[in-house]
Amino acid sequence: MADLNSLEKIVSLSKSRGFIFQSSEIYGGLAAVYDYGPLGTELKRKLNQAWWSSMTQKHDNIVGIDAAILMHPKVWKASGHVDSFMDPMIDDKASKRRYRADMLIEDYIRKLQKDGKNEHADHIQHLLDTSGTRKSLNEDLYAIIMDEEIRSPDSGAFEWTEVRQFNLMFSTQFGATSEGEDSRVYLRPETAQGIFVNFLNVANTSRQQIPFGIAQIGKAFRNEVVARQFVFRMREFEQMEMQFFVKPGDDDQWYDKWKESRFEWHKSIGIREENLRFLDHPADKLAHYAKSAVDVQYKFPIGWQEVEGIHNRTDFDLKQHQEFSGKKLEYFEPQTQQRFVPYVIETSIGLDRCTLMTICDAYREEEIDAGNGKTETRTVLKLHPKLAPITAGVFPLIKKPELMERAKAIQEDLSDTWKVIFDEKGSIGKRYRRLDEAGTPFCITVDFDGLEDGSVTIRNRDTMQQERIPGEKAAQYIQEHTKKWTPKD
Amino acid sequence: MADLNSLEKIVSLSKSRGFIFQSSEIYGGLAAVYDYGPLGTELKRKLNQAWWSSMTQKHDNIVGIDAAILMHPKVWKASGHVDSFMDPMIDDKASKRRYRADMLIEDYIRKLQKDGKNEHADHIQHLLDTSGTRKSLNEDLYAIIMDEEIRSPDSGAFEWTEVRQFNLMFSTQFGATSEGEDSRVYLRPETAQGIFVNFLNVANTSRQQIPFGIAQIGKAFRNEVVARQFVFRMREFEQMEMQFFVKPGDDDQWYDKWKESRFEWHKSIGIREENLRFLDHPADKLAHYAKSAVDVQYKFPIGWQEVEGIHNRTDFDLKQHQEFSGKKLEYFEPQTQQRFVPYVIETSIGLDRCTLMTICDAYREEEIDAGNGKTETRTVLKLHPKLAPITAGVFPLIKKPELMERAKAIQEDLSDTWKVIFDEKGSIGKRYRRLDEAGTPFCITVDFDGLEDGSVTIRNRDTMQQERIPGEKAAQYIQEHTKKWTPKD
Repeated sequence: MADLNSLEKIVSLSKSRGFIFQSSEIYGGLAAVYDYGPLGTELKRKLNQAWWSSMTQKHDNIVGIDAAILMHPKVWKASGHVDSFMDPMIDDKASKRRYRADMLIEDYIRKLQKDGKNEHADHIQHLLDTSGTRKSLNEDLYAIIMDEEIRSPDSGAFEWTEVRQFNLMFSTQFGATSEGEDSRVYLRPETAQGIFVNFLNVANTSRQQIPFGIAQIGKAFRNEVVARQFVFRMREFEQMEMQFFVKPGDDDQWYDKWKESRFEWHKSIGIREENLRFLDHPADKLAHYAKSAVDVQYKFPIGWQEVEGIHNRTDFDLKQHQEFSGKKLEYFEPQTQQRFVPYVIETSIGLDRCTLMTICDAYREEEIDAGNGKTETRTVLKLHPKLAPITAGVFPLIKKPELMERAKAIQEDLSDTWKVIFDEKGSIGKRYRRLDEAGTPFCITVDFDGLEDGSVTIRNRDTMQQERIPGEKAAQYIQEHTKKWTPKD
Repeated sequence: MADLNSLEKIVSLSKSRGFIFQSSEIYGGLAAVYDYGPLGTELKRKLNQAWWSSMTQKHDNIVGIDAAILMHPKVWKASGHVDSFMDPMIDDKASKRRYRADMLIEDYIRKLQKDGKNEHADHIQHLLDTSGTRKSLNEDLYAIIMDEEIRSPDSGAFEWTEVRQFNLMFSTQFGATSEGEDSRVYLRPETAQGIFVNFLNVANTSRQQIPFGIAQIGKAFRNEVVARQFVFRMREFEQMEMQFFVKPGDDDQWYDKWKESRFEWHKSIGIREENLRFLDHPADKLAHYAKSAVDVQYKFPIGWQEVEGIHNRTDFDLKQHQEFSGKKLEYFEPQTQQRFVPYVIETSIGLDRCTLMTICDAYREEEIDAGNGKTETRTVLKLHPKLAPITAGVFPLIKKPELMERAKAIQEDLSDTWKVIFDEKGSIGKRYRRLDEAGTPFCITVDFDGLEDGSVTIRNRDTMQQERIPGEKAAQYIQEHTKKWTPKD
C-alpha cells in the first residue's frame, strides 16, 4: 500500500542528513532536478561501482565504454527520437504554462470520479483511450478539452492553444556555424545509443566474440513537462545500461538469463526479496523496437515502481544506424563464416531510483530501550555495509589525549580502505544515533581498558550489540562482516 | 620540445586499443567531443577513484557532492558567466562559418612572420595587444580585420559581419513555460558553482567546521569555437574540483598547502616528476575572482600544458551568490562567535587531460631481443598498476583442458578484486605484447609444472622478468607490487 507519510520521512531524512537536496535550492530550486549531498554521493558512487564491477569485472565478455552526452544529431534521427519522442502538449495562453494534454484529461477524469460522476468519467476515459482513432491524436485530445471545457489548473482560464507534439529532448546550438538547424544537437535522452554507435569500434578493439556486452553509466536528459514526486521522474538522471549482443535466435534464451541475473543483483545489494517483483510488458504495449520487455519493480512507499527494465531490442537499433550512417554494423562469426546484425538484450537501470530504493529498503524506525525504563525511537538505515556512505566511525570514549590519539591512529589506518570518520562530540549513544541515520554499520570505541590490552569495542549497527576485539583485527572484522551481511528485519 | 609525431602515436594507440574514440564516429564525428572505449573508461574510472579517495577518504574534513549539470539560470548571472564568459566572434557571410576575431588576427600575424614581414607583424601584434583601448574591444578587433583586409580561411571571402561577443555556454529551453528567456537554462561551464550554491546545505548537514572542503567530479560544457588537438580542448569534459573553505587571512597559507599537496598527488599516480612543473599566473593576468593562481603543467608531446589549476578565489563566489540569492552564505565560528563569508581555495583538474597525461607518461617504445639474434620494438604502457585498465591476464600455456581449467579458476578468484582477463590465443609472447599495450602490469601463466606443484609464473610488465610463485600467492603478489611500484624509465 502507498504510504506517503513514509516517503515524506525519507525525503526529510535525505535533506537533513545530506543524501539528496533540491538543485540550486538557494535560488528556489530547479524543478525535477536534484543534487546529491555528501552521504547521497557516496551511496550513489558505491551503487555505481557495485553495478560496474558486477558487469565488467565479473564477466569476461562485458566491457565498458563512456560515450559523450552530446552526439551527432543523426543518431537521434536513426533512433527515432527526433520524430517520435513526443508528448501531446497544450499551452494556457493566460499563464503561458504548458501542460500534457492527456494528463490534463486524466486529472479531469479523477475529479469526475471524486464528484461521484462515474458514468461520465468512464465515457471520457473511453474517449481518451481511443484518441487518435477519430481524427489525429492531437485533434482528438483537443476535442475532449474543448467539449468538456477543461480549465487550466494554474490560471483557471479556458484559453488554450491547439494541442501540439512537443519533443522531450533538450536541444542546443553547437559549434562554429552561425545559424540554422545544422548546428542543433541534443542532450542524449538515453545512454543506449552511445553503445550502439560504438558497437564496431568496441568489437574491433576489444577482441570480443558474440555473445558479448557493452556496459555504460552516464547522464541522460528528458524535458519532462510533468515533474513527478522526488527523484521518480527527473529531467536529468543517470542510467546504468548494458547492451548484450547475441546471435539472432539465441535472443530469447539470453533475455531469460539476464532477467534472472538482474533480479539476483538487486538481492546482492541487500534489497529484501519481498520488495522486488517482475512486471512483464504485455505484447500490445511494447515499444516499437522491443520483442519483449520486463520491469524489475520495487515496492516504494508510493507503491510498486520500475527500477530497471530488461528488453529484447532485436536488431532494430543497429539496423537503423546502418541505414542512417551507411556503415555496415555486422558481426562476422569465425566459426560459421557468417555475417549478421546481432540482436540486443538490454538491461537498463536508473541509478537515482536505485539510490532511493536502497534508502527506502534500509529505512527503519525502531522502538528501543532508552535505559531509564522508557523507550525511544531510533532511525536507522540498514544499508548493505558495502554501500554504506561511511563504513565506520571511530570514537574516543571521552576527550582524553591518549584516547584521542589511539582513535585517530585507528581511523587513519582504516581510511586506506574505507571512508571512516572520527567523532568525539556528545555521548557515545548520541554518536551511535548519528551514524545509525547515516547507515554506518560499524562503530569502534577506544576506551581505557583498550589502552592496557590493545582492545577496542566494535558495535554492530543492526543488532546494536558490542563486541570487544583486538584493535588490529578491526579491518578484518569489517571485511568479514561486510561479506556475510544479509538484510534482516 | 614539441613532438607531434609522438602525440600521433598516442592518438593512434588510443583508437586502436580502445582508449579514446571520436564521438559518433560512424556519423563522421562531432567536433571536439570524444568517447572513451573499454580501456579508456577503466583508466578514467580509476583516476576518478584515486582522486576521490585522496580527497574524501583521506581527509576527514572533505566531503563530496554531486550537483546536477542543469542549474538555476541565476547561478550564471551571479557567477558572471552570462555577462562575461564571452569570446569576440565574427562571421563569414559567404560560408556562414564563425571565427574568433582575435585568433583570425593571430593567424594573420603568423603569416606575416612567415613571409618575413616582421616589422608589420610587430605592428599588428601591438594593435592586437592594445585592442579595447581605442574604441571597444569588438570595434578595435574589427578595425584590424578591415584595415588589413584579412580574408576568411575557408571561403577566401572578405565579407565579414561585425565582431560580436559570443557566449561560450550551451543553453537550452527548460520545462513547462512555453516561451521566452525565463525558461532558458545552461549546461554548466564549470562544476565549481554547484559546490558554492550547496555550501549552506553541506555546512548544515555534514557537521564540518572551517577549514573544510567539498569535492565534486562531473561534466562541464563549453561551446569552444576553435577545437584544439585531441582531448586538449573539448566541448564536453569532466572536472574534478575541490573547493576548500577557510577563514579569511588563512587563505595564503592554505593556498600554499594545496599547491604542494596537489603536486604530490600527481606523483602518487605515477607521473614522473621531471614531466611536471608549476606555472604561476602573474598578478596582471589573474581572473577577476582570483587573488592568486597556479597551473600544474605536464610536458605533453605538444609541449607544457595545464592539467590542473589551484586558485585562491577569495570570497568572490559566495558573496555573489549572497547578493543574487538573497541568502546569507556565512559561516558561524563557534570558538570566536564570529560570522564571516569564507575564502575559497580551489583545486581544479581536468579528468580527460589527466587521462591523456597518464597515457603519455606511461607510453614507451623499447627495443627488445626478439630471440633470433634480432631486435623488435615493443610498445608498452607503464601505467601505475593501481590505474591499469586490466590488472592481470591469466594464460594457459597451451590449450589443454587441465591448464584451461586451472587458469579460469585463478582468473575467477582474482576477479573478486580486479579486472582480470583470460587469454588463450596465440603464443605467450603475443599475449604479453597485447597486454603490454593495454598497460597490464601482471601476466600469470599456468603450465604443466604448475599442475604438479601448484605454482604459476608471474611476469612483470616493466622488467619483463618472470617469477615462479605459488598460485595462491598471486593476489598477495599483485597487492604488494602495486603498493611498492614506482615509475622507471
